[in-house]
Amino acid sequence: MIDAVKAARDAASPQQKECQKLDWEDQLAHFRQMFDLPKGEIYLDGNSLGAMPVSAVPAMQEAMSEGWAKGLIRSWNARDWHMLPVTVGDRLAKLMGAKKGEVLAADSTSVNLYKVFCAAMNLRSDRRKVISERNNFPTDVHILQGAIANVFPKAELALAGDDDDSVLELLDTDTAVVCLSHVNYRTGRLRDMARLTSAAHEVGALVIWDLAHSLGALPVDLTGCDADFAVGCSYKYMNGGPGAPAWLFVATRHLGEVQNPLTGWQGHAVPFAFEIDFQPAGSIEKFRVGTPPVLSYLPLMESLSIFEQTDMQALRDKSLRLTGMFIELAEQRLVQHGLSVITPKEPAERGSQVALTHENGWPIMQALIEAGVIGDFRAPDILRFGFTPLYVGFEDVWAAVATLEAIMETGFWREDRFSERKLVT
Amino acid sequence: MIDAVKAARDAASPQQKECQKLDWEDQLAHFRQMFDLPKGEIYLDGNSLGAMPVSAVPAMQEAMSEGWAKGLIRSWNARDWHMLPVTVGDRLAKLMGAKKGEVLAADSTSVNLYKVFCAAMNLRSDRRKVISERNNFPTDVHILQGAIANVFPKAELALAGDDDDSVLELLDTDTAVVCLSHVNYRTGRLRDMARLTSAAHEVGALVIWDLAHSLGALPVDLTGCDADFAVGCSYKYMNGGPGAPAWLFVATRHLGEVQNPLTGWQGHAVPFAFEIDFQPAGSIEKFRVGTPPVLSYLPLMESLSIFEQTDMQALRDKSLRLTGMFIELAEQRLVQHGLSVITPKEPAERGSQVALTHENGWPIMQALIEAGVIGDFRAPDILRFGFTPLYVGFEDVWAAVATLEAIMETGFWREDRFSERKLVT
Repeated sequence: MIDAVKAARDAASPQQKECQKLDWEDQLAHFRQMFDLPKGEIYLDGNSLGAMPVSAVPAMQEAMSEGWAKGLIRSWNARDWHMLPVTVGDRLAKLMGAKKGEVLAADSTSVNLYKVFCAAMNLRSDRRKVISERNNFPTDVHILQGAIANVFPKAELALAGDDDDSVLELLDTDTAVVCLSHVNYRTGRLRDMARLTSAAHEVGALVIWDLAHSLGALPVDLTGCDADFAVGCSYKYMNGGPGAPAWLFVATRHLGEVQNPLTGWQGHAVPFAFEIDFQPAGSIEKFRVGTPPVLSYLPLMESLSIFEQTDMQALRDKSLRLTGMFIELAEQRLVQHGLSVITPKEPAERGSQVALTHENGWPIMQALIEAGVIGDFRAPDILRFGFTPLYVGFEDVWAAVATLEAIMETGFWREDRFSERKLVT
Repeated sequence: MIDAVKAARDAASPQQKECQKLDWEDQLAHFRQMFDLPKGEIYLDGNSLGAMPVSAVPAMQEAMSEGWAKGLIRSWNARDWHMLPVTVGDRLAKLMGAKKGEVLAADSTSVNLYKVFCAAMNLRSDRRKVISERNNFPTDVHILQGAIANVFPKAELALAGDDDDSVLELLDTDTAVVCLSHVNYRTGRLRDMARLTSAAHEVGALVIWDLAHSLGALPVDLTGCDADFAVGCSYKYMNGGPGAPAWLFVATRHLGEVQNPLTGWQGHAVPFAFEIDFQPAGSIEKFRVGTPPVLSYLPLMESLSIFEQTDMQALRDKSLRLTGMFIELAEQRLVQHGLSVITPKEPAERGSQVALTHENGWPIMQALIEAGVIGDFRAPDILRFGFTPLYVGFEDVWAAVATLEAIMETGFWREDRFSERKLVT
């Protein structure tokens, strides 16, 4: 059956040559060789787990054999391991329009959201309303729910819809904190950060932006948008590796006043004085908690070295061409098979992923993966495709659509083995 | 000057041959070759950062090249990466006398302490007193201070002294939670877990044990001691690598009732249903928060494979002989140079480290490290020496004392370069 899929795909190839030409002309095409990608597969899931920079393996081996095994305890100083949360944070800051000293790379996105949410709420302790969104990535809402139940029992959570206007409608002078995803993890819809932040500030509220699906995928300008707080991960478009350290951003104007409820020793003003009374650091280091997972930072640093060779606007331009082409081809060739595009067609309103829906989304995606095109599935009916401009090309877009079309035409996805449901991330 | 130190050390070697004989007879000696240790140095800081298992490098390379680069997103399922916090937790559980499903490997010790402290406090919400110890590792007290300030404003923290009796004196029927280190990070003093837990339970209090300096160093029997909660790291005696995942333990009898304030998506009953309302898992997974840092688990798994080839009682027996010999030699040869042993001489009262004090502890330790014996310094005046029975031998003990004696005799430590203070971990 897989041969039938391939035959159907290759028969339907009028646009293939045009895509090959676009790849040939692509100024960013050389970045692909900096990533170790499996041969014969098309990877459109970099919005979930980014690809591995080739240099990550030797960098890790050197850090283990020389840093850990030979340097041992001395490497905390000699290699500045102790400062990784700050030095990696400063490198991440440049990709989000933040200033030196405003970003800390540490812990998970969820833990970081808890820290900045508690910090933000304490800056608006006279207000009760917390706004998020009902289709947000669940952990964001979960963390708010847990923090409200445990720390801010008088607060009330209000959930907006997908469009920006539904957020604006909820804003009022009782609003303490607004917590939104910049790009929605399901639909790929991009929120207007400048407009929403400004509107929240007008009523005196603070905003926390979750950039998990935008950092590394498009230009972000936290300073230009007058942002208050942000959080995000580094294992999606940032290619930091499975479970790489997450990060948090706190605007300089809030840094002096805010408090981190997770008062671990690494957030102490003088951690190596081993004083028993907690005195927070004056800098972004007040948001440190425990000992940093050193080895997990290494691949992220290799990926940052790649990002530092390009600029986010060039990546954004290519990303919009990739997603635009995928949407166009999907509308030409997939709609008649019952697949719908739910990602905004307006470029300014989408991130770097395209989502399709189909009631049999699960087995269709499993069949597609077996046929060599890796996307993912999100309940109840969403097929997600991430287009990471550093290593995805135009022919990949063509091949993905053509393969999916062939799977629908041949009915390949109906084979029994694709119906068994497994965990997915 | 370094040659003078070596000459002085080698001249003073009547016990050296005896130690070589003990190493020859040591049933655990073969484990040393499973670790990648620098040649020509003696490593007595495994109580701060454990040595690297030789197999950690190929294991990491395989996971990166095959798991991440080739398997990509599929490896979360195909390699059970998603379940690492549970599967690694179950392997750690065996080393602490815990049952399957009682230990979770995740986050940092500090973050884990916050989780279990909040959980424990909510089980005793009618009580106000929290007991810890004034010479505890600072982060433990810091986390309690932050949680009290933010979540339990009516609670009051009382700090005991180093001896167990001073803890017992503070216990009363208003005591909610007692948080103690099993082995003190400075003195190496070992607390009587069974006695203190029992006494706390008698007044209705719950106990959280910090095992950072005991797990992997000596047998721990959480079940036998009827323990409630515990936390610890895995980068010291557990050899998991710099910043390796920490862990937490919750006794089965509390698991149903307790709540984790850090309600991240990975702690949801059905995380991949992506439901917006948080419903905690019924198992230890309710203490999961964010995505696990996969690569950081790999060296720990290699180290666990080594521990699984021996038993903790055999390691404890050797550890006590090593620390006993170090204390004996220190009293013979170092006391006259102003160095004092502050670790209990009674074997049942010490962990696997020996601490000396000297008012010039900092430059003395720097000189000792340059002379090839790696220990560490803790303010204000403590020189720490960790004896990890998997890879430290009896001749190492002799050489460490002889080198330190030579440094004192020659005055090597007075050289200017040793006075410059740096960060230490």
